[in-house]
Amino acid sequence: MVIIMKAGASAQQIAGVVNRIESDGMRAHLSQGEERTIIGLVGDERPVDAEQIEVLDGVERVLPILRPFKLASRDFKRENTVITIKAGGQTFDVGGKGVVMMAGPCAAESREQVLESARLVREAGANALRAGAFKPRSSPYSFQGHGEKALQWMAEARERYGLALVTEVMAPEQVLLVSSYADILQVGARNMQNFPLLHAVGYSMKPVLLKRGMSATMEELLMAAEYIMSHGNYNVMLCERGIRTFEKYTRNTTDINAIPVLQELTHLPVIVDPSHGTGKWEYVPAVARGAVAAGADGLIIEVHPEPSKALSDGAQSLTPAKYQALVAQLRAVAEAVGRKLLV
Amino acid sequence: MVIIMKAGASAQQIAGVVNRIESDGMRAHLSQGEERTIIGLVGDERPVDAEQIEVLDGVERVLPILRPFKLASRDFKRENTVITIKAGGQTFDVGGKGVVMMAGPCAAESREQVLESARLVREAGANALRAGAFKPRSSPYSFQGHGEKALQWMAEARERYGLALVTEVMAPEQVLLVSSYADILQVGARNMQNFPLLHAVGYSMKPVLLKRGMSATMEELLMAAEYIMSHGNYNVMLCERGIRTFEKYTRNTTDINAIPVLQELTHLPVIVDPSHGTGKWEYVPAVARGAVAAGADGLIIEVHPEPSKALSDGAQSLTPAKYQALVAQLRAVAEAVGRKLLV
Amino acid sequence: MVIIMKAGASAQQIAGVVNRIESDGMRAHLSQGEERTIIGLVGDERPVDAEQIEVLDGVERVLPILRPFKLASRDFKRENTVITIKAGGQTFDVGGKGVVMMAGPCAAESREQVLESARLVREAGANALRAGAFKPRSSPYSFQGHGEKALQWMAEARERYGLALVTEVMAPEQVLLVSSYADILQVGARNMQNFPLLHAVGYSMKPVLLKRGMSATMEELLMAAEYIMSHGNYNVMLCERGIRTFEKYTRNTTDINAIPVLQELTHLPVIVDPSHGTGKWEYVPAVARGAVAAGADGLIIEVHPEPSKALSDGAQSLTPAKYQALVAQLRAVAEAVGRKLLV
Amino acid sequence: MVIIMKAGASAQQIAGVVNRIESDGMRAHLSQGEERTIIGLVGDERPVDAEQIEVLDGVERVLPILRPFKLASRDFKRENTVITIKAGGQTFDVGGKGVVMMAGPCAAESREQVLESARLVREAGANALRAGAFKPRSSPYSFQGHGEKALQWMAEARERYGLALVTEVMAPEQVLLVSSYADILQVGARNMQNFPLLHAVGYSMKPVLLKRGMSATMEELLMAAEYIMSHGNYNVMLCERGIRTFEKYTRNTTDINAIPVLQELTHLPVIVDPSHGTGKWEYVPAVARGAVAAGADGLIIEVHPEPSKALSDGAQSLTPAKYQALVAQLRAVAEAVGRKLLV
Repeated sequence: MVIIMKAGASAQQIAGVVNRIESDGMRAHLSQGEERTIIGLVGDERPVDAEQIEVLDGVERVLPILRPFKLASRDFKRENTVITIKAGGQTFDVGGKGVVMMAGPCAAESREQVLESARLVREAGANALRAGAFKPRSSPYSFQGHGEKALQWMAEARERYGLALVTEVMAPEQVLLVSSYADILQVGARNMQNFPLLHAVGYSMKPVLLKRGMSATMEELLMAAEYIMSHGNYNVMLCERGIRTFEKYTRNTTDINAIPVLQELTHLPVIVDPSHGTGKWEYVPAVARGAVAAGADGLIIEVHPEPSKALSDGAQSLTPAKYQALVAQLRAVAEAVGRKLLV
Repeated sequence: MVIIMKAGASAQQIAGVVNRIESDGMRAHLSQGEERTIIGLVGDERPVDAEQIEVLDGVERVLPILRPFKLASRDFKRENTVITIKAGGQTFDVGGKGVVMMAGPCAAESREQVLESARLVREAGANALRAGAFKPRSSPYSFQGHGEKALQWMAEARERYGLALVTEVMAPEQVLLVSSYADILQVGARNMQNFPLLHAVGYSMKPVLLKRGMSATMEELLMAAEYIMSHGNYNVMLCERGIRTFEKYTRNTTDINAIPVLQELTHLPVIVDPSHGTGKWEYVPAVARGAVAAGADGLIIEVHPEPSKALSDGAQSLTPAKYQALVAQLRAVAEAVGRKLLV
Repeated sequence: MVIIMKAGASAQQIAGVVNRIESDGMRAHLSQGEERTIIGLVGDERPVDAEQIEVLDGVERVLPILRPFKLASRDFKRENTVITIKAGGQTFDVGGKGVVMMAGPCAAESREQVLESARLVREAGANALRAGAFKPRSSPYSFQGHGEKALQWMAEARERYGLALVTEVMAPEQVLLVSSYADILQVGARNMQNFPLLHAVGYSMKPVLLKRGMSATMEELLMAAEYIMSHGNYNVMLCERGIRTFEKYTRNTTDINAIPVLQELTHLPVIVDPSHGTGKWEYVPAVARGAVAAGADGLIIEVHPEPSKALSDGAQSLTPAKYQALVAQLRAVAEAVGRKLLV
Repeated sequence: MVIIMKAGASAQQIAGVVNRIESDGMRAHLSQGEERTIIGLVGDERPVDAEQIEVLDGVERVLPILRPFKLASRDFKRENTVITIKAGGQTFDVGGKGVVMMAGPCAAESREQVLESARLVREAGANALRAGAFKPRSSPYSFQGHGEKALQWMAEARERYGLALVTEVMAPEQVLLVSSYADILQVGARNMQNFPLLHAVGYSMKPVLLKRGMSATMEELLMAAEYIMSHGNYNVMLCERGIRTFEKYTRNTTDINAIPVLQELTHLPVIVDPSHGTGKWEYVPAVARGAVAAGADGLIIEVHPEPSKALSDGAQSLTPAKYQALVAQLRAVAEAVGRKLLV
């Protein structure tokens, strides 16, 4: 932590900051510049609250030196985290050499729709089935999901078609229920900073797909992962699902930069969601290819047997035929960058 | 709802859209332009999901005509909603002619700090005491609040100093507990789209202070209010607390435009939080004055007996003396715009 | 400047950075932390390019300590800059105790419209007439302004009604022409980083109204002012005119925080444009009152004799009657905060 | 254009809007909904200014139906625009089946540096040399470019190494000079809405590389292209160079969605700049691969013989060796998606 004193800070103000640092058990390191005095804090700065220093008399700004996340950082663990999923009779690794494919409808709408979706994505190529039982909707009047019934349909699909299940959990009190069905708990973008929920999925020890908030920075995403990991649950996959920008032709802007940046900062796997990242099925194939070429460890894609009848997100759902064609393209791209699809 | 067909959409595609609309029980209204066919949907469009129409063959875009919120809208209720708070022996109206003042520390840190804060803000001029018992913090290693103990300290302060209590509730399972102490339930910015929480505070029937999400639009804020109101709890105050922008000198950007815009769109009271809106106490007085001049129904301001010892948000907390000076300024500004402070 | 080395940077990499700094004539100051080595640069860091240091082997990040602007900063000049405008027989100060009012139509549309606008705003209360002769329009097919003819109409209005003239200059080659008519040169938001234009208005020595770019930070605004001032033209007024955010109900978001922040960082006057800041005339009065209460040194407001016939920006233009009513409100607010309108 | 009247608009207000539309020579088409009256405008809406309608009594909102750009749109021209560049003895097509590579330093720093850069990128694989003679810098104290001298060095490099030249033009009065040297005129991100400059490059008839503004939408980018094309210069390449977001680990966020979106909306070629899109050379290869996989027609990449001595943008410049390795990767990715590099 580096503390920049105001131009003209008095000796007394400087001493006040130094005393405060030393009373926290750290050492202070003074550096008298021409225009400003700079105070460096020697030692692990994480226990010191920058805000408390910033408010001291004569302080202009406080610059943190260390990243605020620890367990999630590459400094803490050099080698990639590989999460092994065993479900429906199959086993696959997320974060290894292979590229994992998760696909399925936005919402689980009926037993038939879930089973049909599972069959179709399995045939086209998928490791996991995605579908929502509890749906975060911006209107209280929209369909809010079929709850536990939907989880049962999904469990049946897992057995029949050998797919792992990834589904969203929206509140701490749902974690136990959803964990008893799902193989991967999804924390949605709107809940990335729902701290009670992060604590609860941290306790659950289930693999977690953590979606980046709509306007979250990568540092905030990694702090959310840190929340989960602080309970010992290290099975966290980060999901880039597009961020809010001024652009209006797309629902979100897929942050493709996030792939190499996260792979530098953290050991956790990076999954990309081009369906939410664009909001329009026409753009999904191009962005999916881009994500694999850039090094994503997996994709999660909305596929619906009949998008025009979908209860939600129809506009961004691929038909099974289009998804199948995309899988073929992705296979070629993965190979061009020295990886392979796991389907 | 207006549906814009692609240039060159076929007669069959147009018929497909019309059939779909009519099968939903609405009437369609065709308008053949030079470059595009436009289809208007006659009737209340809210039950129709724009996404489901957008995905039909030949559709370019769907433009909603009606606002998606209903109970929260001025069309639904012309006159202002006035919420009467009775607590600690006093009664005051939020949303009437008077301007309400809520003040106190970010977090309830100890019994002494809570009582001292309450005494000081009461003397300086305040209707409600704000303080956090459950704290949303971006790091799992930061202080997370004293929980129920803190609520008890606050209840004691209410009795002693005659202040209403406003405090944050972070999860559905906390609503019952927090409701048994607080006079106003705060839903924080990070939870504005925590839908299970919105449902739970909607059921509670307690007055709610709903903070705008960090990157939320006003429409999204009003949809969150709609969630609460859809359970019959109409006692919702909207709180502008600054939005995230590219600006780095401030923590957030106070959206002063939100005051007149919300007052046009909705009948609910509008409260402004200049402490989070700026993130630096030096800027709080100017923005607080601006908010009152622009027509805010109240302010919520962080005040700490000793900001440099605050466990959180010290940098944006006023000292009691500075808060007192600000109250005097605000009194003058309120009168200049034909209102008066309620303290 | 503080240079943070990567965890595990070698002694050789550290020596490389130190050598580079010393070869630039500065002193380096090493600080060996537990996880990172930090190198402080002693001396005026401004001539050193952070990018060149950032690219050296073993460097993780470079944190600048000093603000990059100098002439524009309060450290350079403590007391407020007061710009005296003499025009049309009147004299007024921008940046003093008084609050200046600039008003008029978006575009100068005809001699009659300019004279009528001038007469009306003068009667309602204005120090300067704003109107555009050269118009930046997002479509090449929109009205682009009447050019020099418009400047002549404005000059006539100045003589008749005793108003100073503020008008936009869009290209370096227009500076000479516009300077020969205008009392204040406006640099528009889209041109805030048009560096050849900033150089040209810097050479002109005319007072400049510099508008903040639509997505510019205050630091970037102050760097643009620095460009102008680097040629010796210190007569720069900064104009907050709203920034682009995700909000859709307004055209821009007026950054009211900018008023106290800029007043802390710089000695230059701060003007607010609530017309562009909101984009809708209904919201202009509330935001204008807020700006004066927060401490703005002046306002620039769009007023059109007949907004529904305006060739541009009709939706955000006040009628003369509404402007007159607003001036009365502003007079009261200014007095409540210890200032007075200059009209 | 669809005009939404306010709830409760009077018959007189509706008639006022209809009259206005008809006096502009269009036909109005009324549709009486349950809550609102909607007025459709039949005919080409582009000459009608939405702002002028919005300000009429009783109007709530105006929704445009048609895209505001015409010449740049796929509706106007279905087949891709292919721009043939002949320079330095070679010929290549931008916008055809091949993927074009432009590479070189941020700034032309010396004759030696320019020739050396040209030699190295030519060997590694490049069609065009990029280098700046006129540099837009955020500080007036930074290096501003070597001007015409730099253009001469570049012309020498073209002859020696058979590369086309792409370089930035910053002001209308530079267009003639720069056109006499360059093969492609670059309009920088900060000048995307510098309308006098867009007019000037439109008159020049030279191929133009138009960079998307830092916070510009794609619609605004296409309107800027429309400016250039409105003078008959149809040789416009659009360049996605990253947009400003809240993310701090990268300088900008590369909008990969822009590739498929622009290819749907327009016939113009799309070039991606991963150097500015990320701001850090470590991330350039991943994003460059992603862009080619997503369908970009070309890349423009910063390469410097010695990045740590670069006068600008060193942190985002690849070494020639790293660029060479990247070209090999891109060759494989291009083939995987059915295209090939032109080098």
